[in-house]
Amino acid sequence: MYSFEETLQLIGSEIEHIDWNKEPRGLYEPIEYVLSLGGKRIRPAVTLMACNLFSDNVMQAMNSAIGLEIFHNFTLLHDDIMDRANIRRGKPTVHKKWDDNTAILSGDVMQIEAYKWMTRSPETKLKQILELFSKTAAEICEGQQYDMEFEKRDNVTVDEYIEMIRLKTAVLIAAGCQIGAWIGGADDEDAQNLYDFGNNIGLAFQLKDDLLDVYGNEANFGKKIGGDILCNKKTFLLIHAMQMAEGSNAEELNYWLKNTNSEESCQKIKAVTELYNRLSVKDICEEAIKHYCDKAVASFSHVRIPDVKKSELRKFSEKLMSRND
Amino acid sequence: MYSFEETLQLIGSEIEHIDWNKEPRGLYEPIEYVLSLGGKRIRPAVTLMACNLFSDNVMQAMNSAIGLEIFHNFTLLHDDIMDRANIRRGKPTVHKKWDDNTAILSGDVMQIEAYKWMTRSPETKLKQILELFSKTAAEICEGQQYDMEFEKRDNVTVDEYIEMIRLKTAVLIAAGCQIGAWIGGADDEDAQNLYDFGNNIGLAFQLKDDLLDVYGNEANFGKKIGGDILCNKKTFLLIHAMQMAEGSNAEELNYWLKNTNSEESCQKIKAVTELYNRLSVKDICEEAIKHYCDKAVASFSHVRIPDVKKSELRKFSEKLMSRND
Repeated sequence: MYSFEETLQLIGSEIEHIDWNKEPRGLYEPIEYVLSLGGKRIRPAVTLMACNLFSDNVMQAMNSAIGLEIFHNFTLLHDDIMDRANIRRGKPTVHKKWDDNTAILSGDVMQIEAYKWMTRSPETKLKQILELFSKTAAEICEGQQYDMEFEKRDNVTVDEYIEMIRLKTAVLIAAGCQIGAWIGGADDEDAQNLYDFGNNIGLAFQLKDDLLDVYGNEANFGKKIGGDILCNKKTFLLIHAMQMAEGSNAEELNYWLKNTNSEESCQKIKAVTELYNRLSVKDICEEAIKHYCDKAVASFSHVRIPDVKKSELRKFSEKLMSRND
Repeated sequence: MYSFEETLQLIGSEIEHIDWNKEPRGLYEPIEYVLSLGGKRIRPAVTLMACNLFSDNVMQAMNSAIGLEIFHNFTLLHDDIMDRANIRRGKPTVHKKWDDNTAILSGDVMQIEAYKWMTRSPETKLKQILELFSKTAAEICEGQQYDMEFEKRDNVTVDEYIEMIRLKTAVLIAAGCQIGAWIGGADDEDAQNLYDFGNNIGLAFQLKDDLLDVYGNEANFGKKIGGDILCNKKTFLLIHAMQMAEGSNAEELNYWLKNTNSEESCQKIKAVTELYNRLSVKDICEEAIKHYCDKAVASFSHVRIPDVKKSELRKFSEKLMSRND
């Protein structure tokens, strides 16, 4: 059995050795750039670890794991164009470093590369893996579409928000778990429980991200604290605050939502954070994270393998959840 | 055996009955719109006809045929963003009718939909079909990248241009022929000959398109004559003219290449067309078309099936080549 640290090393080494030295350079250089920026490699990690629950041969799941990671990075590349984001992981985004057309076309070929890797999954399970992958890939686009539509709407409900982040973030982690389990030899029930585990871990992970964007430690979190507040991003926290604020709290929240004066950024972040505190939305978010973590644990407990085999995937998910707040 | 007209009817009916009525509407409506605009359906047609050379059951190739057509239309959708094209098949392009973000994201999900259809190819041949499809899909992106790079270069050679249109246009027609042949039960040699047939038909088809853009009949061609001349598009004709023009012809060509005054559009089209005539580039282009048609015929003649079975695919390709000049 591999520890999760060893699993991450295997993935890092595999990604590093992919040969992107193909022509035309203008098409393949941005792919190499995006993949070199790092990231937590959550999707390939859960794929290999889910496989490792049922089989010692984790390398048989490597191609699918890499396919999922390439696909994930493709969605970031295209989302950054749509969101006009200039920075990703501390570096200029592809459309900033090159231009929009490069970002569109490199993204397109990156999606194809993801499918090339997925097609190298074990042949006896190829059709079911590709069907789940394509279903998941389409759901991620649906999630991004809802995300963009929500920015133009004032009445987004918590349920709608949860469904959006499920589509945009959770389903790919879930699919990684299920595909890894399938490749390892899991039966349908265990594979489904691993899907549910990944789905709930994914939801908890994204809610934690919402929380850290306000309450995190800048150095550890890796992006500017308060970014979501400054752009009025309809996160779990803001949706709850908008629903719960009354009287002077509602007035103050509306004042800051309308205030886009960049010279008052610090005041805005401070004031909205204090509103969140007064309205207890931090507590509500932490409860929701715990709710989805508990659901993940329950699904994982139903997977019928000895407990000792489950330790690394459990540790990895706990590590994701205990990110430095 | 199906006539090519019956084949086109089968395809039209299949495309018409695809259910795009999925949420979110903002994501799926543009796909339905693009596919409803029509087009010649060349790629699915050759796929079914290539299958029909070896098998009476053409419907077994339908899913792959539709996948190729959806992929082709996805490339048009994204190319139109990159080329800032406002009109496609007489209607507003997706990024004009909606916006850039919609066009990017609907295109992304359209590519995934293409893979969903490809994954429904006969399972015994699934891996080889997907490998060829992904290879081809990446080549098409490479072709688009070269096309964009060529617009910024003054020294594009004829060989580079031919390689660009091979990637951008011919390989998908070639892949359709090969995939159809495989599904019909062709051996590797016949399947390869059909790939070569499709590749050369594709090259001839694109050169014919270059020719018709200057010398076509507007009503039949379906777009404005002279569009390539007005935007200085480096077609086979212009590349040859730039190479061959000397003295006053070179001066005149350069004058018009620098003249982007929209009030002199008619004069520019007329003058450059006359230059093409004087430099015999029309004849050179027609010879090149004949060259690739002859190569296609030769590859087709090597396919080891009775001649009578070849009539419909032959008629279809002749029809493509005798488009109204």
